[in-house]
Amino acid sequence: MVRKSNDGSISDGTGRLRRRADERRREILRAAGRVFRRRGVAAAGMREIAAEAELSPSNLYHYFDGKQQILCVCQELSLERMLGALRQARRSERNAHERLADVVRAHVLCMLDEIEGAAAHLEIEALPEPLRRRIVARRDRYERGVRGLIADGVAAGEFAPCEPTLVTRAILGALNWTARWFHPDGRHTAAEVADSMADYLVRGLTATGAAERTPRVAHAGGRR
Amino acid sequence: MVRKSNDGSISDGTGRLRRRADERRREILRAAGRVFRRRGVAAAGMREIAAEAELSPSNLYHYFDGKQQILCVCQELSLERMLGALRQARRSERNAHERLADVVRAHVLCMLDEIEGAAAHLEIEALPEPLRRRIVARRDRYERGVRGLIADGVAAGEFAPCEPTLVTRAILGALNWTARWFHPDGRHTAAEVADSMADYLVRGLTATGAAERTPRVAHAGGRR
Repeated sequence: MVRKSNDGSISDGTGRLRRRADERRREILRAAGRVFRRRGVAAAGMREIAAEAELSPSNLYHYFDGKQQILCVCQELSLERMLGALRQARRSERNAHERLADVVRAHVLCMLDEIEGAAAHLEIEALPEPLRRRIVARRDRYERGVRGLIADGVAAGEFAPCEPTLVTRAILGALNWTARWFHPDGRHTAAEVADSMADYLVRGLTATGAAERTPRVAHAGGRR
Repeated sequence: MVRKSNDGSISDGTGRLRRRADERRREILRAAGRVFRRRGVAAAGMREIAAEAELSPSNLYHYFDGKQQILCVCQELSLERMLGALRQARRSERNAHERLADVVRAHVLCMLDEIEGAAAHLEIEALPEPLRRRIVARRDRYERGVRGLIADGVAAGEFAPCEPTLVTRAILGALNWTARWFHPDGRHTAAEVADSMADYLVRGLTATGAAERTPRVAHAGGRR
């Protein structure tokens, strides 16, 4: 049996088994996401997650040590995705409005995605210390990145003068809160929510209002 | 002993006792608020709340039946205060920007107040059904009121065209989230946070940007 790599890319027996196990883990995370959303993290139990994932409880424990580990993996997946969107926005040649709008949209879609939605509850107080610390550190990194986008926009004159720390927290609050009220079968799709949030939250930073969609030439030029 | 009224306004023995008990209950709510904030609602226990309030656990049970009742009273107090601010804004002669800014500021100050801050966690999933329903109904009423302010501003041309439901939720998310990150001994006072939120969140609705502080005469005139 070939065991050259650990990334599941080899299509021998081991690779197939690994990929199948990964897919099973993602199904479990999706099921856990639904239970967390329906019942709240505190009230959700492994038995209920197992039932939702159509597994026996003992089989569920084969994949995850417990609810805390599931919660932790959910959070890490979503933070990874959000940090990726932030990196992409930073590298892009677009102006500050467009970059922030991209990050906002990616954040909403990540929160409302069936799997990562679970992370929205952000009830990490209950996690054991090393896990909690790791998630808090990544979350802080994300927050610093968003704050940096805003501070850059202010420095370039594209955004109105403001306290970037407080505006960043307003934005993250608005975005994280979506997971509390969004229903997949509600009046608005996740994409509509994402667009609406991007429009509204970026407009609040616009230095001269109407300039939002057509950034001032001098500054836009300066940044490119 | 005179027992004419139930509002504690009579300065006979009964009135004094009632007022003292009320004051004690408020002290307990403040203590519970600190424990909820420090530990999260799920992890907080009556024993810890009692210690924080410098009471024996059995004495604490003399004032409140349990953690759920404390949480419920916290929520009701804050919702009452927020609904009051909303009523006042509605009755005022000010323009839509100023009315919304007033509501935003009142909401933040309510969330970050030592007592009502506890309500911020909004972990009402754990409350028994009749209590939960009552709080959800009042919260919905508050949300409808904020949405109404925004819809009125859009109709009057003071605010940019938008989906008031989604913008309202963005605003409430940003405001409710403050309780998660605010520290009384942090860099910004509650009043500074309130002003910053009002500036940013109202500007996001501004129809023509610079018009924010000087609403267009025609519409402002039309509303007065």
